[in-house]
Amino acid sequence: MQNFSYSNPTRLHFGRGTENDAGRLAKEVLGRAGKALVIFGGGSARRSGLLNRVLSSLEAEGFTVIEKGGVTPNPRLSFVRETVDWMRDQGVSLIVAVGGGSVIDSAKLIAASLEYEGDAWDFFDGHAKIEKALPVLAVLTLSAAGSEQSIRCVISHHGTKDGIGVECLRPRAAIINPEIFATLPKHQIASGVVDMISHIMERYFSATDATAYIDAQAEAAMKTAFEYGPKVFADPKDYDSWCQVSLVGTFAHNGVFGLGRVEDWACHAIEHELSGWNEAIVHGMGLAVIIPAWMRYVSKSEPARFVQFARNVMGVEAGATDEETIERGIEKLCDFYRSLNMPLTLKDLGAADCPIESLARHCCRKGKVGHLKALDEADVLAIYRAAND
Amino acid sequence: MQNFSYSNPTRLHFGRGTENDAGRLAKEVLGRAGKALVIFGGGSARRSGLLNRVLSSLEAEGFTVIEKGGVTPNPRLSFVRETVDWMRDQGVSLIVAVGGGSVIDSAKLIAASLEYEGDAWDFFDGHAKIEKALPVLAVLTLSAAGSEQSIRCVISHHGTKDGIGVECLRPRAAIINPEIFATLPKHQIASGVVDMISHIMERYFSATDATAYIDAQAEAAMKTAFEYGPKVFADPKDYDSWCQVSLVGTFAHNGVFGLGRVEDWACHAIEHELSGWNEAIVHGMGLAVIIPAWMRYVSKSEPARFVQFARNVMGVEAGATDEETIERGIEKLCDFYRSLNMPLTLKDLGAADCPIESLARHCCRKGKVGHLKALDEADVLAIYRAAND
Repeated sequence: MQNFSYSNPTRLHFGRGTENDAGRLAKEVLGRAGKALVIFGGGSARRSGLLNRVLSSLEAEGFTVIEKGGVTPNPRLSFVRETVDWMRDQGVSLIVAVGGGSVIDSAKLIAASLEYEGDAWDFFDGHAKIEKALPVLAVLTLSAAGSEQSIRCVISHHGTKDGIGVECLRPRAAIINPEIFATLPKHQIASGVVDMISHIMERYFSATDATAYIDAQAEAAMKTAFEYGPKVFADPKDYDSWCQVSLVGTFAHNGVFGLGRVEDWACHAIEHELSGWNEAIVHGMGLAVIIPAWMRYVSKSEPARFVQFARNVMGVEAGATDEETIERGIEKLCDFYRSLNMPLTLKDLGAADCPIESLARHCCRKGKVGHLKALDEADVLAIYRAAND
Repeated sequence: MQNFSYSNPTRLHFGRGTENDAGRLAKEVLGRAGKALVIFGGGSARRSGLLNRVLSSLEAEGFTVIEKGGVTPNPRLSFVRETVDWMRDQGVSLIVAVGGGSVIDSAKLIAASLEYEGDAWDFFDGHAKIEKALPVLAVLTLSAAGSEQSIRCVISHHGTKDGIGVECLRPRAAIINPEIFATLPKHQIASGVVDMISHIMERYFSATDATAYIDAQAEAAMKTAFEYGPKVFADPKDYDSWCQVSLVGTFAHNGVFGLGRVEDWACHAIEHELSGWNEAIVHGMGLAVIIPAWMRYVSKSEPARFVQFARNVMGVEAGATDEETIERGIEKLCDFYRSLNMPLTLKDLGAADCPIESLARHCCRKGKVGHLKALDEADVLAIYRAAND
């Protein structure tokens, strides 16, 4: 196990009706009322009444609120730039994100950019580091990305989807009311479940030794998602099951499952090329295509972790050989994806014609990706090819 | 599942040599150097060189340090009062605890008392609430009580051992270097393992429904302790195993395993009477005596959780009846305690002559204890009697 230093001060405010506490939490975060910029996506947050409940709660505590909708899935830098230009020098003291990962990630980048003179893309292309950010409060509408407790922020810009992670981007409070998930479309529920499990996988598939405590915690969390994900997919009104799924989702990406070990993140890098190339591609669906192909490729040289995954997480019987055990685990994972109507090939994903050579090149533009096996351009291309079969 | 609101900002600073970062962390906590009161227990922290490394690290960052040793196991209010009298109006800005739970709990109460005009016992007898406290930084020497990340503080005063829990008592940083545990006496290692598992049990034995995510996390953590506890007991120099055990210990009491449910805490209340009555009794040893007796008593009316514990945590085969399954689980737990040379009866504990009638009365002085089954004085007496057989 490696040394680590970890602190996650995000207040997790969880349960029925908790969105009505947004104003009180905002005031606790700031120590006073102030001007809050409320970011959201399409009109569903407004139509459902959630946005109004959050706005009312903020106003009841004395906040002045400014609304800004229009964040898209695979959120764009252009939205961030436009919002920052509009809000600069307006005395905003808090960003409230009402949405899923795309909205929260946009809010984080706006929060950092309002504390920085230059352009937001500077943080991604290496021209600047995020030193500080306005406080962000997240009200979750989709359990998937885990951004509500994470240090990460992923933004798309001209076909490049790039991520950064800085402690000061961690939201100060995350409000999760699983009642809100009852009206989600099924493909979003399924993609969310795939995404949250992938955040645990990216930490679990590690060559760092002596990590039994965190391994067991990660295995238990993945098993909970494998059990309860299909329940909320079958019945989105199942509040009790949503409690389990949304706890997996929010812990999956707050860093705890990566304590003391090298994390991987190859699958995210490889998938980001797909949803960067075509923003209509849903991140979770892209992951369902990439992850099994990555597993089959990397397990050839690093079998041990994949045997452990097959036995402890997927619960398959050991085969005659490690290869057989590993394949049973991957096949059971694919069955799970199929049960959620997830695509399993680039063709299923509607990306049969994507330029995999140039995506592989772009994926490795900063060097190799992943750590369990560090993948170069040829490796990534081989994984795209396998995902195309 | 119940609604909850949870935030744990304690920085967990973990691994080899991390005590040498005490000064840097203290400066991050305060935003500047200042006057640090360093609390410790007997002479072992000094003899091992740990205290000097912490002091040097603080001084290197510009801190003025004041040392105060002498905290005893089952820490006394008298030490807290004496230290507060000595330090009041001295401009202390940070308390550094170098020790286990007793030292950290004493540091917490000193930290709160230096921000309060009256007497420290006011917080326990209901005369005052803790509103604020100086920041505490904990450097752990014994993995057991979990105080380094918890909101709790337990203090003994004239035969009463009482606890309080307030958010502002949570240490700002917890430094855990498992190398330090290599020289611990075996009975302290064993008592620590029993204590940390009990902190998970107190949260796990709950009647709140729909808590599958937290249940699975708690079960995984207990199983890790059952596997790795005996390893560090057998070989205290086994750093890799200490990493697992000390992670269990520090997560066991930071609140995460209690999210969204009613916690129990009867066993702690019943044990505190024993170590309050005779401060030579080690808390973890008292728990090893009380827990099986409590399990046999409460499982009669609340069998479901105990069946789950027997199957999922202790890994026993289901018996012909629930009673048989439960008893197999408890017997396997007792075997575990025996393997760590823990006592299993009041007689083994050297407490055959303790006044169980008056202890039961004192235990319930504020009302019933526990929640899975709320226990009155007669129930507690029955548990003491069972523990005496």
